[in-house]
Amino acid sequence: MKNSAILLISCKDKKGVVAEISNFIFKNNGNILHSDQHIDFETNTFFMRIEWDLTGFRISRDKIIEKFKPIIKKFKIKYELKFSDYVPKVALFVSKYDHCLIDLLARYRAGEFNCKIPLIISNHPDLKDIAEYFHIKYYIFPITKENKISQEKEELKLLKKENIDLIILARYMQILSGKFIRHYKNRIINIHHSFLPSFAGANPYKQAYNKGVKLIGATSHYVTEELDKGPIIEQEVIRVSHRDSLEKFIGKGKDIEKIVLARAVKLHLENRILVFKNKTVIFD
Amino acid sequence: MKNSAILLISCKDKKGVVAEISNFIFKNNGNILHSDQHIDFETNTFFMRIEWDLTGFRISRDKIIEKFKPIIKKFKIKYELKFSDYVPKVALFVSKYDHCLIDLLARYRAGEFNCKIPLIISNHPDLKDIAEYFHIKYYIFPITKENKISQEKEELKLLKKENIDLIILARYMQILSGKFIRHYKNRIINIHHSFLPSFAGANPYKQAYNKGVKLIGATSHYVTEELDKGPIIEQEVIRVSHRDSLEKFIGKGKDIEKIVLARAVKLHLENRILVFKNKTVIFD
Amino acid sequence: MKNSAILLISCKDKKGVVAEISNFIFKNNGNILHSDQHIDFETNTFFMRIEWDLTGFRISRDKIIEKFKPIIKKFKIKYELKFSDYVPKVALFVSKYDHCLIDLLARYRAGEFNCKIPLIISNHPDLKDIAEYFHIKYYIFPITKENKISQEKEELKLLKKENIDLIILARYMQILSGKFIRHYKNRIINIHHSFLPSFAGANPYKQAYNKGVKLIGATSHYVTEELDKGPIIEQEVIRVSHRDSLEKFIGKGKDIEKIVLARAVKLHLENRILVFKNKTVIFD
Amino acid sequence: MKNSAILLISCKDKKGVVAEISNFIFKNNGNILHSDQHIDFETNTFFMRIEWDLTGFRISRDKIIEKFKPIIKKFKIKYELKFSDYVPKVALFVSKYDHCLIDLLARYRAGEFNCKIPLIISNHPDLKDIAEYFHIKYYIFPITKENKISQEKEELKLLKKENIDLIILARYMQILSGKFIRHYKNRIINIHHSFLPSFAGANPYKQAYNKGVKLIGATSHYVTEELDKGPIIEQEVIRVSHRDSLEKFIGKGKDIEKIVLARAVKLHLENRILVFKNKTVIFD
Repeated sequence: MKNSAILLISCKDKKGVVAEISNFIFKNNGNILHSDQHIDFETNTFFMRIEWDLTGFRISRDKIIEKFKPIIKKFKIKYELKFSDYVPKVALFVSKYDHCLIDLLARYRAGEFNCKIPLIISNHPDLKDIAEYFHIKYYIFPITKENKISQEKEELKLLKKENIDLIILARYMQILSGKFIRHYKNRIINIHHSFLPSFAGANPYKQAYNKGVKLIGATSHYVTEELDKGPIIEQEVIRVSHRDSLEKFIGKGKDIEKIVLARAVKLHLENRILVFKNKTVIFD
Repeated sequence: MKNSAILLISCKDKKGVVAEISNFIFKNNGNILHSDQHIDFETNTFFMRIEWDLTGFRISRDKIIEKFKPIIKKFKIKYELKFSDYVPKVALFVSKYDHCLIDLLARYRAGEFNCKIPLIISNHPDLKDIAEYFHIKYYIFPITKENKISQEKEELKLLKKENIDLIILARYMQILSGKFIRHYKNRIINIHHSFLPSFAGANPYKQAYNKGVKLIGATSHYVTEELDKGPIIEQEVIRVSHRDSLEKFIGKGKDIEKIVLARAVKLHLENRILVFKNKTVIFD
Repeated sequence: MKNSAILLISCKDKKGVVAEISNFIFKNNGNILHSDQHIDFETNTFFMRIEWDLTGFRISRDKIIEKFKPIIKKFKIKYELKFSDYVPKVALFVSKYDHCLIDLLARYRAGEFNCKIPLIISNHPDLKDIAEYFHIKYYIFPITKENKISQEKEELKLLKKENIDLIILARYMQILSGKFIRHYKNRIINIHHSFLPSFAGANPYKQAYNKGVKLIGATSHYVTEELDKGPIIEQEVIRVSHRDSLEKFIGKGKDIEKIVLARAVKLHLENRILVFKNKTVIFD
Repeated sequence: MKNSAILLISCKDKKGVVAEISNFIFKNNGNILHSDQHIDFETNTFFMRIEWDLTGFRISRDKIIEKFKPIIKKFKIKYELKFSDYVPKVALFVSKYDHCLIDLLARYRAGEFNCKIPLIISNHPDLKDIAEYFHIKYYIFPITKENKISQEKEELKLLKKENIDLIILARYMQILSGKFIRHYKNRIINIHHSFLPSFAGANPYKQAYNKGVKLIGATSHYVTEELDKGPIIEQEVIRVSHRDSLEKFIGKGKDIEKIVLARAVKLHLENRILVFKNKTVIFD
């Protein structure tokens, strides 16, 4: 694996933006590994993900933004700069369902995710032994209406201490406060067990069952203050029929929850997602 | 193709119902070709679709119900009796979009549907030449707020005259009145261009586009008085991405609209659908 | 959950077979819970899966076949009789890949499978700690060309001792001998990591990658003496593109391997599969 | 719609290629609308599709290649240059099946394809009336073993006369000679009614039915001299079960044949396909 830099960019579309960015990298002896762009013609917005090999690149990492500044100013660019050898720290939030947790940790151990998972936070003790088996710290923060705000404060303290970059709600059955969410804007990924926007809120499988749909879905999205309304990252569906009881809906749904959540996590960790106006641009 | 009888049944589940029905057919020298049943354990309701060869069957068609009466009474059965050699008469309702219409008529001509389509009704003249090419009568009933009720009356008169059994709304862009619908309960199939219950009502592709979903869908359902809320017959989805403009959403969506509508029509014409509490039981 | 009996049946199609079987159950006070049948018109073969509640059934389990004999003889029926409260014993065979093993064991622990898994057999020690975590015995039988036959003998001895009903090859990378397979006819389920019959044999992902297919697949099937040619139970595919490296093919493939294998195991354990002429009839 | 130029490029990957190409366009006052690239790391090959607005571009169309020459030479680039306002001429080849033909022509009339279809060639008269309805010339070239070479010569003459750019085999049931194919390298698209490489050759649905697969597929590909072995453009599958007769396989298959062929045609007409070593790179 090469060490590379990844630039995620958005700005008003204007002549020359691709050329100037490509040139900036080339002139400084960078070899472009991937470059993908997208223009939203409705809003005339330009998006780009460009990744280049750092071997032989003439600018040191900490100086890249400084040297890139003139282009940023010229095109009024919003940017994020990432390095492929940076290993993000990830915290998992869980409650009692274990299927997403085991799936994520098995993938993690198999090397599917470029991250470090130092800890799991839960409002219940139930999944502690899974954490132990995978040698990951497990913190229990029971949540009640009364203690929610103080518990979230403690959680935040812990997350800061561990330098957490990304939070994954792996079927965490508590609603996070707006205050908490603002600390991790576009850095909390949730899996909702329906094909959003259908069946937001509680008991989506029950809702789907009662409605008599012929396909059920799962949706991974960034968490925003409006419940189940954040930018969608990935969705998948699976066929059901009248023969499927509610229990079968839940069983089939679990299979796609795991896949949809894992895909979203991978996309985020590979710096392939740009959020724009409550939608995602995904450079895959 | 054998001439067969098809019995669609629902009743409270009770010991012996399968045995008595099977026996009734067997004793009268009928050979069962297909038999499928389903129990809804929540409501303890029994559903059955049973089809038997009429060759050598000892009861003439018009006497079957009479002879079957004791079983109907014993189990308080709701039933429909159909004959495979009956060719239902179907009316298509269209507006300006032609993709579903052409697709249905091409399938019809290729023999995919066991039905006769004597007429097309439209509120616009646009698709008349397609009707002509396929040698089907095309009636234009322009609809305004003012004339809607009187036009529907005329339409109903025409439908009765032609002995229409089934109405297919192949992207018909008018909302039918409750009065009209009651004449064809569970006999009007609509195609809605979204994955219901998401994006009911107008402009579903625009809604889906704005929401940033990663899959778009189509739903065929029986029309009820509540708009886009009738029993779902079939659904399908197709993947979209941020690269797809609204126009691409519409283009991709058309492909699944055609398939989903055609599947629903086929299921209905083969007498495979039972409606129960705003859901469908589909014996496929 | 009710205790029920399940009869899986095949015979030449003949008038009265459904009626006589239904009647037999009804007369003896059995309540039919599910009944599904299928006729293969090419070979005129009748298949049935019928399940009835044993509560109040007048024939004791061990006498059912005896009492059912006249019908068996009359229609020359091949049958299997199963009881829903029987818990089959299952052995898992693995090598070094852990994704299917962990997935199966997590589902097992979550109660998705009606079975007992007393042991895992492997030709490598690598996955021992997973077995330990799930408290399942792990036996290592290293396989070489020379010791294969004697090792299989030992394995068979162990499987008999543990009364194993079903063997699951969860990415087991050894080819079983015909002799071994004959001991477990239609009772060994394999997962092959391609959309069979494409890419049978070694390195299917490499083959698929070189061919440039746009979808890759996974296939679960019963093991027969011809490699990767046994009756197919379940298949699934996932989209790939030129952007996907061979490693990505393998990663995406793993996701469907897990699902396809788990579905096949479930279908087998619920006695929903009949094998007929190297194909499966699946009563779902 | 803007008039744009599209450059499809492949070469050995080397530092600076993106930058130099982007720069070339920018310096000459072109606004890049889309730019997508791909590196095949196995062969170290660089692929690019770049599209720019011609409004205000300082080089006239016929001079672009000349001015671009230095970059072509420096990187040893293979290229194709296309213009979005060029309307390719397309010939359809058909035999007796009408589903793909009607579907393509209905899409064509609805404006889905950027092309002109001046003629249809068939070895049978059966589909002539469809051609007439859509006002397209229909030429009949009956093919026998004896006259095949001379008939192909006549066909080629006609295709040249009409300046045909692309040939679509819409279920054309004749095998084209190598000689014919060489005239239209990577410009003949076929639809094969199986999930290739499974079930190449004759009667793929029958083969699939006999094998007992649980999904059937369709594959669109460029025609090469080896039958059904050309570069795959697009594939899709649909679920089948033991309940589906061979006729149902064929019916379900038709639905995906139409979609898969239409997608491939669209990709080709939008200049999104690069062929490399019997595989396709698809810039979607």
